[in-house]
Order: sequence, then C-alpha cells, then structure tokens
Amino acid sequence: MNGAQALIRTLVGAGVDVCFANPGTSEMHFVAALDDVPEMRAVLTLFEGVATGAADGYARMAGRPAATLLHLGPGMGNGLANLHNARRARTPMVNVVGDHARSHKRLDAPLESDIDALAGTFSGWVRRSLSPADVAADAAVAVAAAASSPGSIATLILPADVSWEDGADVAAPVRVRPAPRVPSSVVDDVAAVLSSGEPAVLFLGGDAMGEEGQLAAARVAAGTGARLMSETFPARAARGAGLPDLTRLPYPPEMALAALAGTRHLLLAGAEAPVHFFGYPGLPGHPVPDGCTVHVLSAPGEDAVTALRDLAQRAAADAEPELLEASRPELPTGELTPRAMAAVIGALLPERAIVVDEALTSGVGLMELTSGSPRHDWLALTGGAIGDGLPMALGAAVACPDRPVIGIQADGSAMYTISALWSHAREQLDITTIVCDNGSYAILEHELSRVGAQGDGKRAARLLDLGGPGLDFVAIASGMGVPATRATTAEELADQLGRALVEPGPHLIDAVLPRRG
Amino acid sequence: MNGAQALIRTLVGAGVDVCFANPGTSEMHFVAALDDVPEMRAVLTLFEGVATGAADGYARMAGRPAATLLHLGPGMGNGLANLHNARRARTPMVNVVGDHARSHKRLDAPLESDIDALAGTFSGWVRRSLSPADVAADAAVAVAAAASSPGSIATLILPADVSWEDGADVAAPVRVRPAPRVPSSVVDDVAAVLSSGEPAVLFLGGDAMGEEGQLAAARVAAGTGARLMSETFPARAARGAGLPDLTRLPYPPEMALAALAGTRHLLLAGAEAPVHFFGYPGLPGHPVPDGCTVHVLSAPGEDAVTALRDLAQRAAADAEPELLEASRPELPTGELTPRAMAAVIGALLPERAIVVDEALTSGVGLMELTSGSPRHDWLALTGGAIGDGLPMALGAAVACPDRPVIGIQADGSAMYTISALWSHAREQLDITTIVCDNGSYAILEHELSRVGAQGDGKRAARLLDLGGPGLDFVAIASGMGVPATRATTAEELADQLGRALVEPGPHLIDAVLPRRG
Repeated sequence: MNGAQALIRTLVGAGVDVCFANPGTSEMHFVAALDDVPEMRAVLTLFEGVATGAADGYARMAGRPAATLLHLGPGMGNGLANLHNARRARTPMVNVVGDHARSHKRLDAPLESDIDALAGTFSGWVRRSLSPADVAADAAVAVAAAASSPGSIATLILPADVSWEDGADVAAPVRVRPAPRVPSSVVDDVAAVLSSGEPAVLFLGGDAMGEEGQLAAARVAAGTGARLMSETFPARAARGAGLPDLTRLPYPPEMALAALAGTRHLLLAGAEAPVHFFGYPGLPGHPVPDGCTVHVLSAPGEDAVTALRDLAQRAAADAEPELLEASRPELPTGELTPRAMAAVIGALLPERAIVVDEALTSGVGLMELTSGSPRHDWLALTGGAIGDGLPMALGAAVACPDRPVIGIQADGSAMYTISALWSHAREQLDITTIVCDNGSYAILEHELSRVGAQGDGKRAARLLDLGGPGLDFVAIASGMGVPATRATTAEELADQLGRALVEPGPHLIDAVLPRRG
Repeated sequence: MNGAQALIRTLVGAGVDVCFANPGTSEMHFVAALDDVPEMRAVLTLFEGVATGAADGYARMAGRPAATLLHLGPGMGNGLANLHNARRARTPMVNVVGDHARSHKRLDAPLESDIDALAGTFSGWVRRSLSPADVAADAAVAVAAAASSPGSIATLILPADVSWEDGADVAAPVRVRPAPRVPSSVVDDVAAVLSSGEPAVLFLGGDAMGEEGQLAAARVAAGTGARLMSETFPARAARGAGLPDLTRLPYPPEMALAALAGTRHLLLAGAEAPVHFFGYPGLPGHPVPDGCTVHVLSAPGEDAVTALRDLAQRAAADAEPELLEASRPELPTGELTPRAMAAVIGALLPERAIVVDEALTSGVGLMELTSGSPRHDWLALTGGAIGDGLPMALGAAVACPDRPVIGIQADGSAMYTISALWSHAREQLDITTIVCDNGSYAILEHELSRVGAQGDGKRAARLLDLGGPGLDFVAIASGMGVPATRATTAEELADQLGRALVEPGPHLIDAVLPRRG
C-alpha cells in the first residue's frame, strides 16, 4: 500500500470522507488512490479558496471535518483567506498539502516555497510527513487535532514521494478530545452575578448558538432579567420560530456601543468578549462600556450548552423562556430594496433551510424578517475575509444534501471565488444564490466616510465602484452551468426564488438593488 | 500631511506611479489620498491575485516596480500565488498591506492574522511602519529594496492609523543598487572553458534574455561552437526575426535530459542551473548530465549583458552571429488543433506585441511558429502557480499602452483569476485573450500517467476534467464586459484574432481545441 492509499483509508476510518480538491502534479498519487477508496468523496473545485471555504461550510453543518487537497505553497495561499475564516469559526478541517518529493526539496524548484511557515499562520496543528511509514499515523493525529474541541485547522504536508512509495499501512483513529465541562464553581459565580439584579447581558457564541444552548440561555434570561445577545458573526446559528429572539451585536461601532450601553455585567457563553471589527479614529476598540465587568461562563471550546443548562437550573429553575412565534413577512411588491429582498426571503424561506450570509451592507432587515420563519441554520462570515459565501454554500450542501441552501451574496464579494458556481453545477446541489447586486463595494463607501477620510473625490470613488463595466451575474453564472435569472422588482424576486426552491439543482438570481450615490 | 498622503507622494517621487489595488476598510485613507496625488494611477482589481499578477506583468515590461494595495493578511493571502510567481521572476514590486490601527492590534479582531510571517514567505524585504513620521522613509527604502538588483518583493505593512494620522512628510528616493559587473577573471575562466572545444551550452536567463544579451550570446555561440539555450520559463524574453534561435530547455524531464545529453560544460548567464519542475520516481531531479561541469558567468542579479559582451569580445571577437530571418507560418485551415492555433498566432502576431504565455499543454508549436515573427516580448509563468496569465496581461498593458498584448491562456488556469477580465474591460486595454479551451486540466492528465499512478479510473479522471458542465468563456467574458467570440476552426480563429487586433480595447476568443481522451 502506498502512502496516498494509506492516508485516504485512514482519513475515511477516522470519519473524514469528503475531500474538496484542487490538485496538481504533486498530488497525482492522492488522486489516483481515490479509485481505490470509493468511500472518500472527492469534490473538484477550480480554485483553492473554493475548496477551503467549502470545507468550512461542510464542517459547520456536518459537525466533523472535511479534508482539502491543495497544491504546494501557492495552492495553500489561494486557500488562505477562507482558511482564515475557518480559523475564526473554529472549524475543524484537515488540509492535505502536497509538496515536492523529499529528494527534490533541496533543489529549490520553481514551485518551492516555505509551506511550513505559511501553514503556521492559520493552523492549530502542522506536520510534514517524513516517510510512507508515518503518513497514516500523521493523518490520524491530524483528524484528532482538527476535531478536538475547540475545532481547528490541521495541516498535513505530504511530500509527493511519501504518497507514491509503498510501505504504508492504515492507522486507527485517534481519540478526539471533547469539549471540557465548565466547573460548577464558575456556574455558581455567574449565577451570583445574575442574582445581583444589575444590568447584565448574556452574550452567546460558538456552540451556545445551537438550539439547546439558546433555549437554556432563554430560560436564564426569563428568570434573571439578563438580556440575550450574540456575537455579530456566529459560525452557525439555529434560528426561527420556537427559539428566542437573539439580538446580534451590531457591526457598526456606534451601534454596538449603544447596544451594550448601561450593561454592568457581560456574561460570555461560548463567545469571546466583543471587539470592533476595525479601529476608528476617536472610538474605543471595543463596545464593552466602562464599569462593565466581563465574566466567562464558558470559553470557546468549553461545553457552553451544559454550562447554560446548569446556569438555568441554578438561576432560573422555573422560568418559562420567551420564544418567537411563527410569523412571516408579507410578500412585498414594487421596488427591490434590500429590505424588500429580506422580506421575500423571510416570506419564502423553506423548512430546514441553510442560509449562507455574505450579504454585507445589503443584509439590512434580513435578521428581523427571517426571525419567525421555520427553523433554519444561518452561517456567517466569521473572519471578515470576503469570498466565503459561494464556497460555504457548496460545502453546506454537500454536508446536508436533503436541505435547501440559500446563499445571500454581496456582488463584490462574489467575485473573489466566483468559480464556486461551477462546482455548484457539477455536483448538482440544491443551492440558490441571491446576488445582492448594487454595483459597488458599498461597505467600503460606508467605511470611506466613517474613517473620516477627506477626499472622497472621483478617484477614490472609482476604486469602490463596480460599474464601468457592470458585472452581469446572469451571464457569468450561465457560463459556469448554473441556471440564472435577473430580478428587478420584489415580485420578480419572489417568483424566481419560489421557482428556484422547488426545482432541484443550483440556481442564481441576480437581485438588482438600487445603485448608491 | 497624513501618513497615506506622504506614502503615496514618496512612492511617486521614487518612480512608483501605478498601484494595483483591492482595498478594504483599513486602506480607506490610502484610497482617499489618491485624490490628493493625481500622479499615482490606481487600477482597481476585484481580487488580490489579479493585483499582484498585474504588478508582476507591469514591472516585467516597465522595468520598474508598481505598488499593490492589499487588505490585511487574508488579502495578501489571496495575492500570494502571483507573489510567488513574481518572486521567481525576480520582479521588483512594492506591496502595501493595510493592517489594523496600532491600538486595535492587540484586540485580536476577526481580521487579525500574522501578516509579518506571511509576508516573510515571499518578500525580500518586510517592514511594518510604526508611526506617521516613519512611513515615508519606509516607503523610500521599500522601493529601493524592490528595485535593487536582483529585483524582489518589498512588503510594507501599513497600520490604518499610521495612514490616517498627521505628522508625516515626503521622503526623498533612496539609491537603487544596480546589477554588479562580473569580474573579468570570471569572464576569462569561462572563455578558457569555451576554448577547450568540449561540448558546451551557454544557458541564458534573467536579464540575458533581452535583445542585447541574446545578440552577444549569439556571437559567443558562433565563435566558439557552444550551443545556445535558455531557461524554460523566462520572466521576459525578446523574440522574433533578427534575434538568435534560442531553444528553451523543455519542460518534460525526459526531453530536458535529452536536450542537455552530452554536454560537458554548462555556462550560466543570468540563469540558475536548471532543475526539473517536479521530482518523478526513478528520474534524477535535474537535467544536467553526469560529468558536466556547471560554470557561472553571471548569477541572477549580476550584469549578464556586459558579461556576455565581454565574453564575446574575448572568445569570439570576429564572429558573425546566426540570426533568425523574418518568416511567418501560413494561415492554417480546418481543425483547430493546438498547432493550428500556434500557426494562426505566428501568422498574425503584430509588431512589438507582448505575449503572455500561460498556454501550458496547449502551447505545442507556439515557440517554433512565432520565432520568425516581428520582434516581440514573451512573458512566461515563472513560478508554476497557475492563474498568472490574465493578471500579467493587465499589468503589461498598463505598462505599455501603445503595444498590443496577446494572452494565450489555458482554460483551467484562467479560472483562478478570471475576474482580471473585468479590469481589462474597465481600463479598456488592448488585450486579446485566447483561451485554450480543451475542457480539462490536460497537464495533470499528462502528469497522472507520468508519475506512474496506477488507478487512472473514473474517479481520478473526473478530478481532471473540466466538462460537466463545460465552461462557456464567451458568456463569462461577456458578463465581465469583455467582447468575446468562439472559434472552432483555424479560419475562425484567424478571422477573430485579426479583428480583435485591429479593434481597440479588450477581446477574448474561446479557442475550442480537441477534447482529450
């Protein structure tokens, strides 16, 4: 058995049976070995950022890592932005990065680069397999490292000849470390804070964003008067009727400051203490008010669900949580504004949908207008590196082939990883992408004014404008095999979304929103 | 004056007056400052890999660095593959990478990552500006570091508040270190080797690939009997009638070994000693035969042109070089094979064209059939990280607005940085892209068999196949504002290329080549 065969069998044995791949020459034995191990599903992407974003979306929904297959340092570089997002989401992932054969390494061939240093910038675990006899054991440890709590990226560097040489054997899975329980003394301390009656916010993130965590948190809120809030961009959030109305901390610093104003105790469950996305002149770096104490009920990677249940038991034993009733907005008519787009989505969102949200500025009203929809999951852009939406939708759909995936996708961001559409088509996945087509980097137009930049003259404006020429997403999607339509009114969007949701396979709707300026 | 204004003015003063940009929030003051410094031309790209590849193509043609403007670590990551190619080309480039404000750095905001470590993997020079008072001096040193011989990538990390704070001033340019001359004793030694009469190859690369270097090398060859050869993928090569017939070392290892078989002396001028792109089972890692001595006339970064002239003077004073006569292939008819495509290009290649070659397997016959065309420059993929072609064409066209640019672009590779087409259109550049549309990663199909992989079954084949769905490059290009046509015969290609070359602005021709398999 050669190294590649042992590697793939070991991954499959450890529960990693999907690989998002963009291979090159140094990975040809891995590719060849796929025919020997039919349990491993390989999904071809045309760009590495699609592979890494897909592995992120897959793991967020499947709850276990996918593998990626990347081609040396430059291939891993192409995947880096979405690896960054995955790192911020604490997504478990096993990167397999091919490298030159061991004998070739010292020759400084054209594709040689410092893979190890690059991998270190986003990985929780990095190893270079040194021989075919090692590779399976390395892979087993990689899976355990990735899947242990909190999830992280494990990068296994695979020299070509370690793949192709014989002498390898399959390794048994290595134990995955589960999320540790929070000590009861910590729960007691937080319960004591809540009993003070001072203004408190229970701030959720990570695994607290599932149904069970939210329901326990809602009991705490009902019994103690604490407000519920969540991090701005959770990796995965359960949403919809029957769950609490969980406000997200707003993105704009001024609004975040207002949202937490007056809070005396910020109680973290699965989340880090919030900070602003960027620093701005004259503003503090985070929204936590002076005089507010931050308490950690559970740190990321600890078992927030059990901690919240324990806390509810202790602080709010008989409380009845306030939960959202089922409700949908009416289908809007007329102009296709961002809010009308949100209403269409809220009105039509199917049962058990997976929403991949990279709407950015066009997401106004989305949270509000989908909050009473049927139960669904919501995946956000965790690390701020745009271009995650189309790939994440790919991965989520591979993980959950029986659930509809709806991608709400800013136009500028879509172009970073646009070739993901081809993979949507090749795999014939039930993904409906709604492009929020406002013809600009609208978020940067906001930011240009917010940072107090003075010269918003023509040359600056031109760097934030996606017109001249306009991007025709219908043509682009069609060129990659995804059926596409254009919606210019609320009615058209409703009609096209309704049809896309009942037809199998991928669709794209170019939602033409008002131009700015 | 704020840091951003001082930075841009300093860059312009040092001769860097083009910036390929994909900015984000942390770069908004740089963007705003563009209105204050109209001498700086900013070119928007929709993806950082387009910006870095364009800066590479620009500098190869302009002979001086462009700047890039990138958004934190993930933005730089998106640019990494083409930064790798630029590093291998020894291209001078000034990366400006925005980062969080200094006060925000420690907060570990979502976009925080180890920019410095990442930059270290491809940069020859890295610095983080610490205050507005430093930034201009840092920029001046960055330009000098990039432009000094051999060219390299200088990465300047620019915290947002170093941009926005006042207290900066313009810095004077710093002296650029020119290529050092090769000592005459070295030239004497090489001349002595050549006088032995033993089989010798004069192996050119880097700055020896310009007209002057090639003409001097041709005199040496004529006077001494040495064979002329060049590296496989030179950053920039002068070509065409009136220059010597400069064979390139073939890419496939077996052919490279055959090309150098029997050579006793390999004389390097501007090139490194060749190595194979990849290691393969049972093959040596490089094509230099046993018993062949490698002599360095000039190392990369030394003045190869003067060294070759000195050598010609010493070893071949009266030799008349053999130079190519003007000749063009006849326009082919019928099936559009790669060779027919090459003949069409050779027949129509305009005077002073810039050819950007990422044809990969579809490039068969291209070198031969364009060798007698009018004088032109040829830019190759230096680092093997595919997705450089469309961006390099952008940069080359910005550098040389009066010269036609022809991109010969493999289909799979095109998809890595396809949004470059939008920038072709926005800037209305005279770029004609010919997509070599064979519907597969054909080079990997070669490699899959070459590495001796056994199971070339259906699952492996599917990972190398770009069909299902096929990519419609006419639709994709049209969707980004580039007029596009499809050629299915040699006549159609000739007709469409002829028209594209006389019409101003960008064009794309989808050249449908025979499918493999």
